[in-house]
Amino acid sequence: VEVIEIDASDVDLGGYEHYMLKEIFEQPQSLQNTMRGRLSLDDATAVFGGLNLSPQELRGVDRILLTACGTSWHAALVGEYIIEEMARIPVEVEYASELRYRNPPVPRRTLVFGITQSGETADTLAALREMKRKGHPTLAICNVVGSTIAQEADGGIYLHAGPEIGVASTKAYTSQLAVMAMLGLYFGRLTHLSFDQGYRIIEELQKLPAAIEKALETNNVAKRIAEKYQSATNFLYLGRHFNFPTALEGALKLKEISYIHAEGYPAAELKHGPIALVDEQTPSVFIMPRGVVYDKVMSNLEEIKARSGPVIAIASEDDDQVAKIADDVIRIPMVEEFLQPIVSIVPLQLLAYHIAQLRGCDVDKPRNLAKSVTVE
Amino acid sequence: VEVIEIDASDVDLGGYEHYMLKEIFEQPQSLQNTMRGRLSLDDATAVFGGLNLSPQELRGVDRILLTACGTSWHAALVGEYIIEEMARIPVEVEYASELRYRNPPVPRRTLVFGITQSGETADTLAALREMKRKGHPTLAICNVVGSTIAQEADGGIYLHAGPEIGVASTKAYTSQLAVMAMLGLYFGRLTHLSFDQGYRIIEELQKLPAAIEKALETNNVAKRIAEKYQSATNFLYLGRHFNFPTALEGALKLKEISYIHAEGYPAAELKHGPIALVDEQTPSVFIMPRGVVYDKVMSNLEEIKARSGPVIAIASEDDDQVAKIADDVIRIPMVEEFLQPIVSIVPLQLLAYHIAQLRGCDVDKPRNLAKSVTVE
Repeated sequence: VEVIEIDASDVDLGGYEHYMLKEIFEQPQSLQNTMRGRLSLDDATAVFGGLNLSPQELRGVDRILLTACGTSWHAALVGEYIIEEMARIPVEVEYASELRYRNPPVPRRTLVFGITQSGETADTLAALREMKRKGHPTLAICNVVGSTIAQEADGGIYLHAGPEIGVASTKAYTSQLAVMAMLGLYFGRLTHLSFDQGYRIIEELQKLPAAIEKALETNNVAKRIAEKYQSATNFLYLGRHFNFPTALEGALKLKEISYIHAEGYPAAELKHGPIALVDEQTPSVFIMPRGVVYDKVMSNLEEIKARSGPVIAIASEDDDQVAKIADDVIRIPMVEEFLQPIVSIVPLQLLAYHIAQLRGCDVDKPRNLAKSVTVE
Repeated sequence: VEVIEIDASDVDLGGYEHYMLKEIFEQPQSLQNTMRGRLSLDDATAVFGGLNLSPQELRGVDRILLTACGTSWHAALVGEYIIEEMARIPVEVEYASELRYRNPPVPRRTLVFGITQSGETADTLAALREMKRKGHPTLAICNVVGSTIAQEADGGIYLHAGPEIGVASTKAYTSQLAVMAMLGLYFGRLTHLSFDQGYRIIEELQKLPAAIEKALETNNVAKRIAEKYQSATNFLYLGRHFNFPTALEGALKLKEISYIHAEGYPAAELKHGPIALVDEQTPSVFIMPRGVVYDKVMSNLEEIKARSGPVIAIASEDDDQVAKIADDVIRIPMVEEFLQPIVSIVPLQLLAYHIAQLRGCDVDKPRNLAKSVTVE
């Protein structure tokens, strides 16, 4: 029996009306905790204590397979983008529920990660067991210390985000993304990234808690926008590149706790179907911080406006172009482009929270959902 | 200038009220045309005239990358499942709009396919150009002879499905799936499939036109169900394994032409969020022909029923278990499991058609959508 010490402040509401809101506001701290002791300026890389694989073994990895469910699956999608960008290793993402039965060809030298907040998600556990049985090295990324997946995987990384009680995952998600970024740095530094490049990535990672602190200042704007759109029955969430998964996760938050049908899409897919849904009653949320695809997303936004769809834009602090076109703008601080999803999700968590709250939904215990899905 | 001969019957309505309905009913014939001359019983494999790559070159392929948009992207997802199952070659699917800008690491010996009905889809063309520029062999799968992608790719496969005029793609989709299955057979026979195994797959492929003919007999049932649910404002579509992409495509059809917010999910993801949407007003469509995951999908279905959600099941002809639980059942003929998506989609096309029609929507020219998306 392992005794786990939990600080009382971790499990009381600490003045917040709901655990979800408390956990959203804990993110500067939880992210700090996820990164603590894992960034080495001396070696300009990330350090993980529990991978249980030597640098030689990790250097031999040709391909990474990330498997997960729900919000953790969105973290895996961001992971694909971040790790491929930083480490240039091909990454594949599979729904755990699909991977466990469909038996895809997985080449040798594939490293498998199972991602689950609770460490008890039935499908993720089963998928990881199947991959382990096939002889792949398996690692767990989870929050709950001593959970089943932590015991069964060959090694892993704890989120150290603290207990997450709200059913809709918030701080565990941003901590999962931070782990993805640190893995990208680690694998990048195993291969082509120089000391100098690694050092600069660490500096960027260290800016995240302050950036999230700043993003939390959008709470009042998010609440005001929530009041405006609380009666909408359908939402679209759109983003590209690093923020395509942010669109999926933002939509999932709203769906989970407000029961509004919100759907995420890569912004450019709009014209291949979802734009047919757009009318004056259907708001679209665009996640469009400055970056490589900014102009492209802007032109998708203009297509929505041309069809009288209301637009809420999540944009960079200094963006004065988008305010001329979007109906509402939430401004977030700029960080390095591949880290932006860690900041961009914050106002979407707040927006979902306030809409659900205004609609009188039970934010911490939404209908039909369980915190940890331990059955198939 | 190439003169293309089009039979007048290809472009008139031939007694149908809409092109979309005509094209749905043409599928036994269009599928026949897609397979004509491409199945060799002598060699027990598929034969393609225009790949422009030698068997030696194709034998050297380690990985296949499929890129597309919209409905063609769903065909690519089915392709991933079919080709991985039949040929045991890892397949990756990328949204063309993402692939063109995000610069993922693509290993050597990766063969790239761009899939587009029109052959003019701007994002798919750009993604294929980018991959070609990087030195990968690129092939096109398209319907329109002489289209831009057919000219620019190193080779390709025409669908021969005949002109598709309805904006919502139907017969081009099933022909794309048939091409995926023939590719699976071809690559499988290059590697581990025996003559006997290849021969039996051809026999299964040849049963498809008759099976689709039979699936079209569900038209009246689909219409009756459409009448029942025409006023619903939200739908969920759920399937697993080979029929997970069928859920996405079925939902897209409804979205495109009826403007109802329909969303597809792998059935097991329900409990990670979307089940919060379920109530007495939100019907769920389960695609659940008999197969490996039948019991699993059934238990997902029961979760919906336990929350009073109406259920429409697309099930096998002889399934007398599901009728006891689902509110409505559409029965389809059984074919080989990996070919089932080609049959399962038919009643979903009909359901979307009748719902849109009953709601007075312009089925062939839905609002905001273009047949061929030639801009970014």
